[in-house]
Amino acid sequence: MTARGGIDLGGTKIQAVVVDDDAHVLGQARHPTPQQGGPPAVANEIAETLREAATDAGVVTSELEGIGIGSPGAIDAEAGTVEHARNLPDWEAPFPLGPTLAEALSAPVYLDNDVHVAVSGEFHLGAAKESSSLLGVWWGTGVGGGIILDGKPWSGRGAAGEIGHMVVKRGGARCTCGRRGCLEAYAGRAAMEARARELVAGGHKTDLFDIMEKHDRTRLQSGIWARALDRGDQMAVKLIHRAIAALGAGIASAVNLLDVESVVIGGGLGSRLGEPYVKRIDEAMEPHLFMPDRPPGVHPAALGDLGGAIGATLLVRERKPVETAS
Amino acid sequence: MTARGGIDLGGTKIQAVVVDDDAHVLGQARHPTPQQGGPPAVANEIAETLREAATDAGVVTSELEGIGIGSPGAIDAEAGTVEHARNLPDWEAPFPLGPTLAEALSAPVYLDNDVHVAVSGEFHLGAAKESSSLLGVWWGTGVGGGIILDGKPWSGRGAAGEIGHMVVKRGGARCTCGRRGCLEAYAGRAAMEARARELVAGGHKTDLFDIMEKHDRTRLQSGIWARALDRGDQMAVKLIHRAIAALGAGIASAVNLLDVESVVIGGGLGSRLGEPYVKRIDEAMEPHLFMPDRPPGVHPAALGDLGGAIGATLLVRERKPVETAS
Repeated sequence: MTARGGIDLGGTKIQAVVVDDDAHVLGQARHPTPQQGGPPAVANEIAETLREAATDAGVVTSELEGIGIGSPGAIDAEAGTVEHARNLPDWEAPFPLGPTLAEALSAPVYLDNDVHVAVSGEFHLGAAKESSSLLGVWWGTGVGGGIILDGKPWSGRGAAGEIGHMVVKRGGARCTCGRRGCLEAYAGRAAMEARARELVAGGHKTDLFDIMEKHDRTRLQSGIWARALDRGDQMAVKLIHRAIAALGAGIASAVNLLDVESVVIGGGLGSRLGEPYVKRIDEAMEPHLFMPDRPPGVHPAALGDLGGAIGATLLVRERKPVETAS
Repeated sequence: MTARGGIDLGGTKIQAVVVDDDAHVLGQARHPTPQQGGPPAVANEIAETLREAATDAGVVTSELEGIGIGSPGAIDAEAGTVEHARNLPDWEAPFPLGPTLAEALSAPVYLDNDVHVAVSGEFHLGAAKESSSLLGVWWGTGVGGGIILDGKPWSGRGAAGEIGHMVVKRGGARCTCGRRGCLEAYAGRAAMEARARELVAGGHKTDLFDIMEKHDRTRLQSGIWARALDRGDQMAVKLIHRAIAALGAGIASAVNLLDVESVVIGGGLGSRLGEPYVKRIDEAMEPHLFMPDRPPGVHPAALGDLGGAIGATLLVRERKPVETAS
């Protein structure tokens, strides 16, 4: 038996897994992402988290066939660098994350975009494993995407999959990217929070921020939206409805262009809200589908919280490793 | 030397070419599409047009290596049938166009969608021949599209490329397809004509319909729009501006999703208005591009009026022929 490692690097947490040949989880660990010390501190913490997962699996990291990492930001997979990752603290310049970890963990390291890695996991092991083509939509702080066509990831010139920046309303809401009318301007959690703050400043009522404070948070994370929806909070209900309408139009547009077999909805909000809301997105797509008689299958992501890290382990057999730093 | 035939079947005309191994045109012919007699009359006329092109090239059709056909409507490439082609007169039920012509012309016949065939021509022989990925946008009565990724056409489950039915304005204008806010609702020539008629009914002035009548037309064909623009007709200027704004948003959305190297603008209006208007579409895309620092190349189609027919000849070496009727 050979074992492989996988890392899902996020703005708030680092999730590590060690899996066997069949991608069954042998060990896992989760640490908070260091908010100080920049890229070197994050790299250290990743190494520590993976060592813990390896111990949990009864191996040492140098025994691993390889370690895959899904990271936010602009990735140079070949060089193993991560550039200007907005979601990671103080990550301003390109940092050689791959080489640094290859040296620290004495194993080959493979790097890719976090959303692409998670979508690949759902394609090979999760909700779309019966499909030959997939559009993955990662609904969280932003709205990311990944495309798999004829069994292979399509990354274009390196930046394909930006479904969050498809225009669903020309001249519409201002997006966090600075442009207007993007899907993410309606459906991204950051944009939804900004909108909620505007509405509150304008005198509208909501429990969203009370729930946030009660849970000691400073941001409207997915669980807070879920709780507010459960209580029937009108602002949450309306903003989520607006997000779903935009997701319906944007995803249907992508399906009209690509005619994929399956759509998988993941990400923080997608996973937290789950099946009933994925069904609502499916219904919101219907009026915009050019071929409504044979819509794609629309599924919630199936791999759960470990999906990103498990997806990252697939990189070990798909890619060339990054060069070590030494 | 071997020769191949190509047909571009349109709602108003049938264009035939015969080309050599290097896709140089050896002979050509053009006939009007019969407006009566339904599919059998159209099939007869196609055969006649191709025979004339073959004579022009100094060959007979049975000597051709094969004949490719680009047709509107829903195509079953394997069976060689064309279904419910809205642009072709009285074409209600599936008709075995491929087998009928294979028998009439004593040569193998290959059938595909007209836009896909024209886009393939631009990819292999025209404006995008240096690219490895392409989005073709065929701007005419409707707005069609074709996608080529990593050198190969992507057709999804058979209906990929419907860029005209990407939503650019949720809740926006009614499209000829019945849905709301599609790109085609703003940029398709049919939708633009409908809008012009509404505006005239509402008391607005334009020379568009005078020019149409002067040229003995019943529809606002591409040349009529071009003439009205040349005269500075305000309604034409505004409706074309609105179309270009929608094309900019829709094409940029597709580029954000696919990150292709090139975009080629063809079709009746695209070809008639040419370079300066393609440049305006390019500029209208810019504010919506997620990676504005490295935009795709945006080019007018280069193969001209014969492009669809020349593109169809490429089918002969890419596909299996359809079965003959006998």
